[in-house]
Amino acid sequence: MIDVCLLGCGGMMPMPHRFLTSLLVRCNGKQILVDCGEGTQITLRKRGFSSNPIDVILFTHYHADHISGLPGLLLSMANSERTDPVLMVGPKGLEHVVNSLRVIAPGLPFQIEFRELSEAEESFALPGEKDFLIRAFKVRHSVPCYGYSMELSRTGRFQVEQAEALGLPKPLWGRLQKGETVVTEDGRTITPDQVLGGERKGLRLTYVTDSRPCDSIVRAAQGADLMICEGMYGEEDKQQDAVAKKHMTFAEAAQLARAAQPAELWLTHYSPSLIKPEPYMDAVREIFPDAFPGKDGKSVTLRFSED
Amino acid sequence: MIDVCLLGCGGMMPMPHRFLTSLLVRCNGKQILVDCGEGTQITLRKRGFSSNPIDVILFTHYHADHISGLPGLLLSMANSERTDPVLMVGPKGLEHVVNSLRVIAPGLPFQIEFRELSEAEESFALPGEKDFLIRAFKVRHSVPCYGYSMELSRTGRFQVEQAEALGLPKPLWGRLQKGETVVTEDGRTITPDQVLGGERKGLRLTYVTDSRPCDSIVRAAQGADLMICEGMYGEEDKQQDAVAKKHMTFAEAAQLARAAQPAELWLTHYSPSLIKPEPYMDAVREIFPDAFPGKDGKSVTLRFSED
Repeated sequence: MIDVCLLGCGGMMPMPHRFLTSLLVRCNGKQILVDCGEGTQITLRKRGFSSNPIDVILFTHYHADHISGLPGLLLSMANSERTDPVLMVGPKGLEHVVNSLRVIAPGLPFQIEFRELSEAEESFALPGEKDFLIRAFKVRHSVPCYGYSMELSRTGRFQVEQAEALGLPKPLWGRLQKGETVVTEDGRTITPDQVLGGERKGLRLTYVTDSRPCDSIVRAAQGADLMICEGMYGEEDKQQDAVAKKHMTFAEAAQLARAAQPAELWLTHYSPSLIKPEPYMDAVREIFPDAFPGKDGKSVTLRFSED
Repeated sequence: MIDVCLLGCGGMMPMPHRFLTSLLVRCNGKQILVDCGEGTQITLRKRGFSSNPIDVILFTHYHADHISGLPGLLLSMANSERTDPVLMVGPKGLEHVVNSLRVIAPGLPFQIEFRELSEAEESFALPGEKDFLIRAFKVRHSVPCYGYSMELSRTGRFQVEQAEALGLPKPLWGRLQKGETVVTEDGRTITPDQVLGGERKGLRLTYVTDSRPCDSIVRAAQGADLMICEGMYGEEDKQQDAVAKKHMTFAEAAQLARAAQPAELWLTHYSPSLIKPEPYMDAVREIFPDAFPGKDGKSVTLRFSED
């Protein structure tokens, strides 16, 4: 399963009632933070999470509202005696930007590893997590900017009959199901494919913020279990602002969802000028019915289907 | 008069219920912010203020909890179409720190002027504000750190009898009272001292955070109308922590106040480990009776006395 918490849903500047857009994803015991604007550590704590166990920070881009909270977060991690390294991922320039910001967070008791993105699409697994894949894809903003999909794959169903036919003792079943190759007491090597059926549908979360509509978003979100997408403006008459500032309207996000057909769409990254998203949701749902307004703390656990 | 709003009272990290320590001071139409940690622009807005009209930002030092909110604040000022320059004041290294942080706030529509402090004590007036003086004084922390006093002087009482004896028309009275030299219609030059009595007691606010107790604090706060002073820990058994981390306990702040005799003491910069300051205030008031726990948004207007 993938635990998802939208920590904030604001764009541009943090507001008393709306933190800046960022996302916490927890899967297989790993914690991944996407973006870290000013106040992200506050909303993280408000939702009952701690900064200490964050393994990975993915940055969409380096506009301040997506990274200004980083020095404070790093210091809070340091104060909680973290020693494990943190992986940071983002467009080219990441190390320079992070090191500049670290003028006020110079001494940390943990290493930072950088992975800078430059291709149109890049995928990578976290160490020891071959069933959990992070896929970065370039989107269309005023500066280089990436969206991210996170995919949890699912092995085939365990074939009890085949395991019994092979005479495998039950303690080996779980290891095979997790994808391990095992050796039996009588010296036979058994690979997972000998006892597992065909791969089943996994889970996918797609996250996009700060972009004009573009094909890479539709491709990434195709059939996703959850698509979280920026919608800077609800009002129809803000279309020109959206184009000028390289953002999207709610309607544009909904059109992308209609093309990609995720199970659900959550909107986020609202303009400070947008008081409430709800009044615009009827129009959005005419385009894509399973659309919901993101709000600070909105959470879901994505689970494998029962089959 | 001087309007004072303690925007936050936390130290180290911003918390859901307690913003980082910073202060907004308004006097003679000027707005002065002291320190700007992560979230300061949120609490500023929460109290009904805007970042746009801030004229001066005073930094005590460059630990992240005192400056991490600066890039976001600068961008919010930019987004509100500010064009007037901003004066920043702080210990040596200010320009380097600010410019490093500006990696995420590069293009601003206003100038930043820097005033770096290096002496044990430095005083300066804001342009056109000769009756309002800012006095920086070095305190004792793990890095160079300054406290600030802000002083509004008060001219002598207007001597109506003398003005009448000089045959001055009433329209000139107000200008003389403000300290202007005037020329009468019949060509006489009149200076303020010809119609004003001796200078009267002005107003003084003294602000200290991140320091061990030291004499410069007592000197600065001597007879102040308000002394705002850090008290990192309320608990007696945290004395060693206070020494090790170059901070103060509530009791140490109160002892400084007892020596300086300000009209009031407000405590601030509480450790995240301190849930509430109130349980420790009885002990504090045994040392200095007019002591109050700072809290986010605590405000006062300091006014000249009636005489």
